Amino acid sequence: LNSKSIGVIGVGAMGMGVAESLLRAGYRTYVRDIVAERMSQAEKLGAIPCASPAAMARDVEAIIILVVDAAQVEEVLFGIDGAAAALASGSTVIVSSTLAPDYVEALVLRLAERQLGMLDAPVSGGPMRAKTGTMTAMVAGETNIYQRYTDLLTKITGKVFYLGTAAGTASKVKLVNNLIAGVNLVAAAEAMALAIRIGLNPRTVFDVVNESSGASWVFRDRITRVLEGDYEPRAALPILTKDLSLSLELARAHDFRLPLGEQAHQVFAASAASPFGAEDDAAIIKYYQSLTGINLPTTE
Amino acid sequence: LNSKSIGVIGVGAMGMGVAESLLRAGYRTYVRDIVAERMSQAEKLGAIPCASPAAMARDVEAIIILVVDAAQVEEVLFGIDGAAAALASGSTVIVSSTLAPDYVEALVLRLAERQLGMLDAPVSGGPMRAKTGTMTAMVAGETNIYQRYTDLLTKITGKVFYLGTAAGTASKVKLVNNLIAGVNLVAAAEAMALAIRIGLNPRTVFDVVNESSGASWVFRDRITRVLEGDYEPRAALPILTKDLSLSLELARAHDFRLPLGEQAHQVFAASAASPFGAEDDAAIIKYYQSLTGINLPTTE
Repeated sequence: LNSKSIGVIGVGAMGMGVAESLLRAGYRTYVRDIVAERMSQAEKLGAIPCASPAAMARDVEAIIILVVDAAQVEEVLFGIDGAAAALASGSTVIVSSTLAPDYVEALVLRLAERQLGMLDAPVSGGPMRAKTGTMTAMVAGETNIYQRYTDLLTKITGKVFYLGTAAGTASKVKLVNNLIAGVNLVAAAEAMALAIRIGLNPRTVFDVVNESSGASWVFRDRITRVLEGDYEPRAALPILTKDLSLSLELARAHDFRLPLGEQAHQVFAASAASPFGAEDDAAIIKYYQSLTGINLPTTE
Repeated sequence: LNSKSIGVIGVGAMGMGVAESLLRAGYRTYVRDIVAERMSQAEKLGAIPCASPAAMARDVEAIIILVVDAAQVEEVLFGIDGAAAALASGSTVIVSSTLAPDYVEALVLRLAERQLGMLDAPVSGGPMRAKTGTMTAMVAGETNIYQRYTDLLTKITGKVFYLGTAAGTASKVKLVNNLIAGVNLVAAAEAMALAIRIGLNPRTVFDVVNESSGASWVFRDRITRVLEGDYEPRAALPILTKDLSLSLELARAHDFRLPLGEQAHQVFAASAASPFGAEDDAAIIKYYQSLTGINLPTTE
């Protein structure tokens, strides 16, 4: 067994998978979530639930943050019963949420004032790969801190890219990746919706595209769900909507236009505001259904 | 050796690869192209050059057409010294160019009037895979004609999807695939250009994206060329510009909007009209360079 005690804040779709991987690797794993049910679920797997981020902070040497956005990061680190004030000097905060790079750049300085180390360490791959520990981690931060947690990061993700000492770099690469993933997903939905509209068999189109120049990771992963009529949220639609929005802000701050990113974000934003807005992001295809009345495959 | 005599009309990027695969499989292979140099090149590989499509038609039992567009198909089949009037009754025309489905639907009837069979058989994968016979073919047409040429199609592409008897179906699936490929390519270029703009190392971003949710066949294939500064046309930029245009027309005819397809086509059309408009379609990234002055990797 591994003697290290590690905390995971945010055991939603991604955090639960990370907690499972930590437990599998033998880490003493603490969890904290605002949804009590999620903590019970993690507890059944062997994790230790915590009453607050501060309570967790007193027992662990590193905290992995997998909450949704910057507002939640602020809350769990600097809010009432936040972790930052309770962590021992020299502890590490591993920030794995997808956040604006300038926020991450400021965060490393704020934590350093309290003698806390930080890794900018977003992950990619989605909940299923989080569960099996086969994601990709992009990591930036001080070399010695990175070295201390390379093994842990490899255990929870499988594949780690170290991108240098400057915190924020990994968040930038993550946003570039998610910009592509977001556009590819809208492209997949738009094209499959067209295929259905013109009378093609969606299963056949799926098989052909996967073996042709239109193949993408997102196409295979999300269109599988569309063909099964399964919109149970793994990666909920608002997540990628937010990531695309962060990509657009990043581009804007550098006087750079993203014509495709903007258009994809429009489709995401319209979908997020719709009746299917809390479903899996594969439900993006329902945007096209709502405009044209096409029949999508169902679970039956 | 295979006793069948087969003709290839249009031995450009794709047709040359198909001719090579036919020769490798032992077919007596005839070639025709308006560029004499291409015929000489094919002749060196063992193909027999023809003075016209009609001259070819007198010696072969099937013709594979791999010209650029419908205007060229009209020319080689029905123009002066066209193949249609010279082909023996019962011969087959295998149409592998990417064309509008309604044109293909009409073509099968026009050829049937002359007792000629037709397969709607577009291919996907690009020149490199054409050369090695590892493309994907989408095929629609009468079952008995399909069966007669299944082996040939497998030899030149590696993977064949039979999509039913109705000619036009394969062309529709091809346009759906290329819509996705076209959008994915603009997404890849846009995101890599952003990465360079914000100071990231493009090689590192390439490595991460290939292992993350942004991965796609087009991203890996075309961004490899961008990283090598190699814009020598394999798939020239106007080809996918035309395919996206055909996808938009297809959608319009079915009262269906393609917001991402339209935006990607805009970027393609602007690029095709630019000084780099005849380069490889990986040069789409130069559209973003022309707007922002980013430094792209060079061959040195």
